[in-house]
Amino acid sequence: MFQTFTETARPEQGPPRLRLLQTWLKDNQIAATLIPRADIHQGEYVAPGDERLAWLTGFTGSAGFCIATQDGAGVFVDGRYTEQVRAQVDLAHFTPVDWPATKPATWLKAALPEGGIIDYDTRLPNTTQVEKQRTGLPESFIQDPREPPIDTLWDNRPAPPVGQIRVQPDALSGESHASKRARLAKTLTEAGHDGALITLPDAIAWLVNIRGSDIPRNPIPHAFALLHADAQVTLFVVDRKLDDAVRAHLGNEVSIAPYDAVFEAAETFKGTLRLDKSSAPVAFAEARKAAGHDVAWDEDPCLMPKACKNEAEIAATRAAHLRDAVAMCEFLAWFDTERPETTTEIDIVRKLEECRQAGGDLGGDLIDISFDTIAGSGPHGALPHYRVTEATNRQLLEGELLVLDSGGQYEDGTTDITRTLPIGTPGDDETAAFTRVLQGMIAISRLRWPKGMAGRDLDALARYPLWLADQDYAHGTGHGVGVALCVHEGPQRLSKISEVPFEPGMIVSNEPGYYRQGAFGIRIENIVVVTEAAPLEGGDVTGKLCFETLNFVPIDRRLIVTSMLSNGERDWLNDYHTQCREKLASLLSDTGGMWLHRATAPI
Amino acid sequence: MFQTFTETARPEQGPPRLRLLQTWLKDNQIAATLIPRADIHQGEYVAPGDERLAWLTGFTGSAGFCIATQDGAGVFVDGRYTEQVRAQVDLAHFTPVDWPATKPATWLKAALPEGGIIDYDTRLPNTTQVEKQRTGLPESFIQDPREPPIDTLWDNRPAPPVGQIRVQPDALSGESHASKRARLAKTLTEAGHDGALITLPDAIAWLVNIRGSDIPRNPIPHAFALLHADAQVTLFVVDRKLDDAVRAHLGNEVSIAPYDAVFEAAETFKGTLRLDKSSAPVAFAEARKAAGHDVAWDEDPCLMPKACKNEAEIAATRAAHLRDAVAMCEFLAWFDTERPETTTEIDIVRKLEECRQAGGDLGGDLIDISFDTIAGSGPHGALPHYRVTEATNRQLLEGELLVLDSGGQYEDGTTDITRTLPIGTPGDDETAAFTRVLQGMIAISRLRWPKGMAGRDLDALARYPLWLADQDYAHGTGHGVGVALCVHEGPQRLSKISEVPFEPGMIVSNEPGYYRQGAFGIRIENIVVVTEAAPLEGGDVTGKLCFETLNFVPIDRRLIVTSMLSNGERDWLNDYHTQCREKLASLLSDTGGMWLHRATAPI
Repeated sequence: MFQTFTETARPEQGPPRLRLLQTWLKDNQIAATLIPRADIHQGEYVAPGDERLAWLTGFTGSAGFCIATQDGAGVFVDGRYTEQVRAQVDLAHFTPVDWPATKPATWLKAALPEGGIIDYDTRLPNTTQVEKQRTGLPESFIQDPREPPIDTLWDNRPAPPVGQIRVQPDALSGESHASKRARLAKTLTEAGHDGALITLPDAIAWLVNIRGSDIPRNPIPHAFALLHADAQVTLFVVDRKLDDAVRAHLGNEVSIAPYDAVFEAAETFKGTLRLDKSSAPVAFAEARKAAGHDVAWDEDPCLMPKACKNEAEIAATRAAHLRDAVAMCEFLAWFDTERPETTTEIDIVRKLEECRQAGGDLGGDLIDISFDTIAGSGPHGALPHYRVTEATNRQLLEGELLVLDSGGQYEDGTTDITRTLPIGTPGDDETAAFTRVLQGMIAISRLRWPKGMAGRDLDALARYPLWLADQDYAHGTGHGVGVALCVHEGPQRLSKISEVPFEPGMIVSNEPGYYRQGAFGIRIENIVVVTEAAPLEGGDVTGKLCFETLNFVPIDRRLIVTSMLSNGERDWLNDYHTQCREKLASLLSDTGGMWLHRATAPI
Repeated sequence: MFQTFTETARPEQGPPRLRLLQTWLKDNQIAATLIPRADIHQGEYVAPGDERLAWLTGFTGSAGFCIATQDGAGVFVDGRYTEQVRAQVDLAHFTPVDWPATKPATWLKAALPEGGIIDYDTRLPNTTQVEKQRTGLPESFIQDPREPPIDTLWDNRPAPPVGQIRVQPDALSGESHASKRARLAKTLTEAGHDGALITLPDAIAWLVNIRGSDIPRNPIPHAFALLHADAQVTLFVVDRKLDDAVRAHLGNEVSIAPYDAVFEAAETFKGTLRLDKSSAPVAFAEARKAAGHDVAWDEDPCLMPKACKNEAEIAATRAAHLRDAVAMCEFLAWFDTERPETTTEIDIVRKLEECRQAGGDLGGDLIDISFDTIAGSGPHGALPHYRVTEATNRQLLEGELLVLDSGGQYEDGTTDITRTLPIGTPGDDETAAFTRVLQGMIAISRLRWPKGMAGRDLDALARYPLWLADQDYAHGTGHGVGVALCVHEGPQRLSKISEVPFEPGMIVSNEPGYYRQGAFGIRIENIVVVTEAAPLEGGDVTGKLCFETLNFVPIDRRLIVTSMLSNGERDWLNDYHTQCREKLASLLSDTGGMWLHRATAPI
């Protein structure tokens, strides 16, 4: 079992640790220090020894930061975590701050009217983040990055992970690392750069076709890579993570250096070194500047090549999604036919992980789940990022909806899928809202668009049916998804804040939802890959793009108000269900097969 | 009759004029000069003496520019004018350039590999335009604005217009100019500016509640205004345009100065003077800098207040649109019941203008048409900006479609409407495409959205039904519309290129279309005003915006494939037609009334 249900927040541990930190601030005459959630690799998941924010405050959310002054501390979190932060920190000592509505500069000016020295650990934020945090800060505030306090104050801080690295076979990645290195080196040469320092582990994993196991959920190694313009790579990684097979795979053109040697390498690199402003820790740029070298700010060279998956990667993840669909259908068959009346949210998470582990008739090959399963019943469904613990666990009740958002990490792909399920007979508000969410999800699924459109240009199509009823959802319609990598990856997003045009091979989720606080939640999610569309007869706009769907798991017909659907929407749904039947029928158990037959009957 | 049908382009006049200009370039050792279409007020329509581009090249389109070198000349026009430019210029001497695909810098580098001095008239472009044109130009090109050649080379150049100015009554504008001046002066003070130079005539007309008659179609006066932070205004205008009534209306706090005095006033203004980078001619900023004064770049203070119409303006334009609808319906009744078989495009334009002049039972009060009517039959319909001349005129033929886009200038409002009409029995491709265009137009009409959305976020909703069939249209979905002002106004647009969030009171057109080159065109256009939406039961997103429709003219039912519409689309159309009947039945002639009854029968 990968997922655990223990509440790790310990609000009572925060105040003594904050006291320790504040004493240090006073001793060093520093007015304030900033403690981010992020680690040096800007990961969504961090290693235990990088849980600085949780260690200090108790808050365990995936985004946020704390600013501690000599007599106060603000914990900055976004709307997703408003409730969670209040439950996890000692409110007598830590003040939750609504971010980004309240800017750090505004908060600091109020907390420290006289200004003062502000300290931050240059290894943790990137330049874009620092520029944002600096915005609006008066000159009376002096930013003076220095030795970070938390790591020294933290007794028994866990050691960094040393997860084994494995080879990602060329058959799955579709391109040897020699070819990737040569291709990217050419772009460096064209840009006039002698090298690029890559700090994002998923970019490095993609570049040299390896996978790691340093943190849960994301199969990435903590490492840095220096890509030289001659296509050689220096990989900065803890030696113990590599076995002979990996060394042989990396070959002579990828040299291994100690993980910590990256700092000196960045400082002393001769020539123009490219850094990505939005991912490289500030420390690298500061070190180069101190040594008199220039920094070339430019995009991580892996960013777009990694985002635009090749044919082999798409075929691989298609296969992974099909096996994942088998597990989902077996689970759904159990849910509808064998589930006991007393089932709880934790039971749901356990059973679903069991189905993914078993892998149906295809055999199990689950490496990890791709994120902690969200199983929100009734009012918990209205929390889009709900994660059940023993403290919050509750029984599924008649008339409620269950939002079930989950995914798996396989050798060949990373999956993510959400279905909303009725427990007993759903209410009219629930089915009407479900149908609107489905209409939005179908609108994206059917979409064909002329090249050049970004998430911002298309996001409203998924919201339109909800908007007509004064309903909406407070998250983007979709995030980028990796292949046997992170379930959240950039730069592509199906969201109002994304201005990156979609390119063939990009994978995104399509997951509109609806959340009625204290009552119920709805979300329907498929993963789709951007594809060149075959031209239609009678059309005259050629070279269009469309989304090919990767998940084939029936959408619950009991929640659909058929009369609300247009002919086109109904045709899409029936066609989708036909495809589910054709692709899955032969792969399911008898129970699963019977369930599939019922679940995919035309409407 | 306002509209004329004479072809004014005279390709044979271009070459001798170009020779004159090139001799001047050689004599002055200048490598190239730039001749824009724009006048000093950046107007879409310019006075005869400002037709510099047409004088030199023959090209009469509403946008574009020429770059002349000592031995060549490129005429830069966008996709709308690709065909027109080839018909209007002498191709042996002028080379059409596809713009913005080809940047001026790219073209100049190819034409003048050695670089050289480039000359432009600083009165004509604004700073944003100059920055765009400069982008990518090597240092070997020296920009050296000086005495403009065209105005001195142009024999018998027409004198500037001296159209009379009239008062726009407070009852229609809804706010006295004293109140507007005070409101805007406050924003200047808050921004730390001592004054703002306003160079856009429609902004000035709005600010002091006047209207002008210097150019056709747009009821604006050529003038400049200096708004002081104490709410006083200096109006730079040719004295003869003002009568006693206007002087009395302007009062003591609006002082009159000669039109040309604006240059010295801008140069010598004491304090911080605001200029708008996207509208103020470069000359003003250059003059201030030369005199050692600063320029505060900021938005024209009238821009947003003018764009967000008040209740009185909305009521006024609603009334104007209703009278305009009466004229449209009388025309449509004639078209369907009395039109001779031999009708030509020019006949259509004449008859429609007659109907607008007559004004039905309401009496005629048409001041002007708001733009030259587009009456494109058959293949001409595929040219979105087609304007019929005696040379292009053709008879309407059985089986064709007619795209009819027109509007009127009334004292209380500016109208714009497009309907597509069948001549005889339409083909299947035509009706299917018409229905898709209608679906897009209905999607925008029904839209309700949370505040903060810009044109870019919503434009795709109008295209979606066409996109599903690999069809599209190569223009924005809508432009801003003024009230008794310009039919094209900013900053609001319903377009992929607009990032200005919609605010209550903004008026835009909703006009998706479809154009099959050489065959037919389709466009359906209503004008809508952004309105706070009344909350719906069962909704939980409050404070939404929606579009209130201003035009009530039936949409041709003979072109609709009913089975393609969803229930919601069909309901919208039937409800819209019911409103047309309720609002117009009592205002039409007997023929018009009978036609209306038939045209609004439910589908």
